[in-house]
Amino acid sequence: MEFAYLAAGFGAGITTIGAAIGIGMIGKGAMEGSARQPEASGDIRTSMLISAAFIEGVALFGQVVCIILALQ
Amino acid sequence: MEFAYLAAGFGAGITTIGAAIGIGMIGKGAMEGSARQPEASGDIRTSMLISAAFIEGVALFGQVVCIILALQ
Amino acid sequence: MEFAYLAAGFGAGITTIGAAIGIGMIGKGAMEGSARQPEASGDIRTSMLISAAFIEGVALFGQVVCIILALQ
Amino acid sequence: MEFAYLAAGFGAGITTIGAAIGIGMIGKGAMEGSARQPEASGDIRTSMLISAAFIEGVALFGQVVCIILALQ
Amino acid sequence: MEFAYLAAGFGAGITTIGAAIGIGMIGKGAMEGSARQPEASGDIRTSMLISAAFIEGVALFGQVVCIILALQ
Amino acid sequence: MEFAYLAAGFGAGITTIGAAIGIGMIGKGAMEGSARQPEASGDIRTSMLISAAFIEGVALFGQVVCIILALQ
Amino acid sequence: MEFAYLAAGFGAGITTIGAAIGIGMIGKGAMEGSARQPEASGDIRTSMLISAAFIEGVALFGQVVCIILALQ
Amino acid sequence: MEFAYLAAGFGAGITTIGAAIGIGMIGKGAMEGSARQPEASGDIRTSMLISAAFIEGVALFGQVVCIILALQ
Amino acid sequence: MEFAYLAAGFGAGITTIGAAIGIGMIGKGAMEGSARQPEASGDIRTSMLISAAFIEGVALFGQVVCIILALQ
Amino acid sequence: MEFAYLAAGFGAGITTIGAAIGIGMIGKGAMEGSARQPEASGDIRTSMLISAAFIEGVALFGQVVCIILALQ
Amino acid sequence: MEFAYLAAGFGAGITTIGAAIGIGMIGKGAMEGSARQPEASGDIRTSMLISAAFIEGVALFGQVVCIILALQ
Amino acid sequence: MEFAYLAAGFGAGITTIGAAIGIGMIGKGAMEGSARQPEASGDIRTSMLISAAFIEGVALFGQVVCIILALQ
Amino acid sequence: MEFAYLAAGFGAGITTIGAAIGIGMIGKGAMEGSARQPEASGDIRTSMLISAAFIEGVALFGQVVCIILALQ
Amino acid sequence: MEFAYLAAGFGAGITTIGAAIGIGMIGKGAMEGSARQPEASGDIRTSMLISAAFIEGVALFGQVVCIILALQ
Repeated sequence: MEFAYLAAGFGAGITTIGAAIGIGMIGKGAMEGSARQPEASGDIRTSMLISAAFIEGVALFGQVVCIILALQ
Repeated sequence: MEFAYLAAGFGAGITTIGAAIGIGMIGKGAMEGSARQPEASGDIRTSMLISAAFIEGVALFGQVVCIILALQ
Repeated sequence: MEFAYLAAGFGAGITTIGAAIGIGMIGKGAMEGSARQPEASGDIRTSMLISAAFIEGVALFGQVVCIILALQ
Repeated sequence: MEFAYLAAGFGAGITTIGAAIGIGMIGKGAMEGSARQPEASGDIRTSMLISAAFIEGVALFGQVVCIILALQ
Repeated sequence: MEFAYLAAGFGAGITTIGAAIGIGMIGKGAMEGSARQPEASGDIRTSMLISAAFIEGVALFGQVVCIILALQ
Repeated sequence: MEFAYLAAGFGAGITTIGAAIGIGMIGKGAMEGSARQPEASGDIRTSMLISAAFIEGVALFGQVVCIILALQ
Repeated sequence: MEFAYLAAGFGAGITTIGAAIGIGMIGKGAMEGSARQPEASGDIRTSMLISAAFIEGVALFGQVVCIILALQ
Repeated sequence: MEFAYLAAGFGAGITTIGAAIGIGMIGKGAMEGSARQPEASGDIRTSMLISAAFIEGVALFGQVVCIILALQ
Repeated sequence: MEFAYLAAGFGAGITTIGAAIGIGMIGKGAMEGSARQPEASGDIRTSMLISAAFIEGVALFGQVVCIILALQ
Repeated sequence: MEFAYLAAGFGAGITTIGAAIGIGMIGKGAMEGSARQPEASGDIRTSMLISAAFIEGVALFGQVVCIILALQ
Repeated sequence: MEFAYLAAGFGAGITTIGAAIGIGMIGKGAMEGSARQPEASGDIRTSMLISAAFIEGVALFGQVVCIILALQ
Repeated sequence: MEFAYLAAGFGAGITTIGAAIGIGMIGKGAMEGSARQPEASGDIRTSMLISAAFIEGVALFGQVVCIILALQ
Repeated sequence: MEFAYLAAGFGAGITTIGAAIGIGMIGKGAMEGSARQPEASGDIRTSMLISAAFIEGVALFGQVVCIILALQ
Repeated sequence: MEFAYLAAGFGAGITTIGAAIGIGMIGKGAMEGSARQPEASGDIRTSMLISAAFIEGVALFGQVVCIILALQ
């Protein structure tokens, strides 16, 4: 079961990196766009939430795989 | 079965990185475009959803491979 | 059979990274182009679909190799 | 149990890198936007908190996986 | 035969990365060019198809090597 | 217990890298913003402290995991 | 013969990356040049084919080495 | 105890890289800001000291973990 | 003889990467130069062929080393 | 004691990289700032010394850990 | 003798990467310079040949080391 | 004693990389600054020497650790 | 003696990369400078030869170490 | 003694990379500066020689460590 623990720990870390890079790029883009055109702020925030939800879904799927491994 | 667990954990993490980078680039591009031309916002969001769906499909395919390995 | 599982998990993850980077670059370019010239939007979306289909084809080929390995 | 400890330590470090990169990009973008348009400062800070909360959630999820492994 | 499986899985993933990066750069360049000069769009798409076919050929060659290894 | 020591040392180092990169990006952004608009300096410093506190929290969480491992 | 299989799979993947990066850079440059000066399009496409043929030659040489190894 | 020594040496080095990158980015940003607006120099130096203190704290925490390991 | 096979496969792949990067940079530079000054196109193509021949020579030398190893 | 020697050598090298990157960034920023505004040269040099002292402190701390390991 | 073969194959590949990067940078610079000032084309080509000859010399030296190892 | 030799060789190389990157950045910055404002050349050279001395000190410290290991 | 062969091959390759990167940067800079100011071409070529000779010296020193190892 | 040979070869290569990167950056900066202001050419060349001598010193120190190891 040792390798399962190993995989759980590293997998959780790598999954977090992935989600953070993706959401970070989206969030940065949203703020730059919001600063360039404040009147389009609501439209941009909607797109931000949709994109972040896509990534959040994949990341939580990956975290579930890790939690399965950690409890094995 | 140990290596299968190892592969499941790392694979889930790497898959998440892939999806997050791809969707992050698309989402960032969509927001920049939406901030530059607010009147083309609907057209850009449609393209964003199509591209993100492509990546989401490949990523979920990869996650299914990982879940098969984790349950072995 | 252990190494086959290992290869399946990592291969699926790396394949997803590849597809995501490629489609992400294409999608980002499409949105930037669509934001710069909204009237050329249909022509750009056609090119986007052709390019993404090329990459999608190679990626699914790679995923099939992984699924063969995972079921071995 | 040795590999579980190994995974806990590295996982905690990698998780922190992920969260820090993501929140760092968001925070940097927020400050640049806030410096470019001080009157949109409240709207930008709201977006910053939402994005950072997304990443914080995934990171704490990853840290919990690590703490489970460390106490095993 | 274990290492052959290992090579097949990783090779398929790396091959996909290669093809995706190459076609992604070409597709991005094509869309930027098509957005900058819409009247040269047919000429650019022809070049895009030729370049992508070059890469597609090498990538499929690599995938065939991997499928040979996976079935060994 | 050897691997726990190994994980503690590397984990502490990697955690520090993560926190330093994140806080470094935020601090750099804050100073650039503060130099571009000195009158928005108080507002920017508030955002800087909030963002840095987010990262500091995750980093200290990771350091606690490492100290647990080092004392095992 | 195991290591020969290993070398064949990885070598095919790395060879594809090499060819794809090279042809991708050339194709991207060709399209940008073709978009900047449409009247020099024939001259640029000739150069593109010559350069791509150079790389294609080296890449096929590498693929032949891999196919020799895969059939050993 | 061998791995503890290993972890101490590498951990100290990696911790230093982290602190140096972070403080280097902050210091570079402070000097650029101070050169662009000399009259905001006091305000920038205060922010520089706060940010550097954040990173210094995490880094010293990590060094203490390493010194514990080195003396084990 | 196993390691010789290993070296042949990886060496062929790495050699291809090297040649492709080098010729790709040269080809990209040639096309950009040719697009900027079409009247200097013949002079640039001559330089392109000389430079590419230099790299082609070293790459074929490396491939010969690999073919020697593959046939051992 | 072998691993302690290993850690001492690598740790010293990595510590030097860290310190050099940090001080290099600070020194480069100081010279660029000093060249852009020669009249703010004294103020910039003071900041340079403070920042470099921060990094120097952490680096010497790391070197002491290495010297302890080398003499073990 | 196995490791000598290993070293020969990898060494040849890495040597080719080195030479290709170096000559690629020089060739790219030469073409950009030649496109910017066509009347200085002869002077630039002379410098290009001298620089490329320097690198070619070191690379052939490295290849000779590899051929010695491959024939051992 | 074998690992001590290993550490000495690699450590010396990595230490040199660190010092070279740091001093290279400082020297490059100094020359750019000196070319932009020749009248501030003496002031810049003084700063260059101070910064380089900082790095040189850490690097020589690291080299001494390596020489201790090499003579063990 | 096996590891000595290994070190000779890899060392020769890495040495070539080093020399090629360094001379490539110098040669590229020389050509760009020569294209920007053709009348300073002699002065620049002199500096190019001095810098390249520095690197060539270190590289040949490294190659001699490798040739000593290869003949052991 | 095997690991000492290994360390000597790799160390020589890595040392050369370090010196080449550092001197390459300095030489490139010197030529760009010399092309931008030909009348400050003597002053820049003096700085170039001082900086290169610093790096050359550290690199030769590292090469001496390697030659000690190679003759052991």
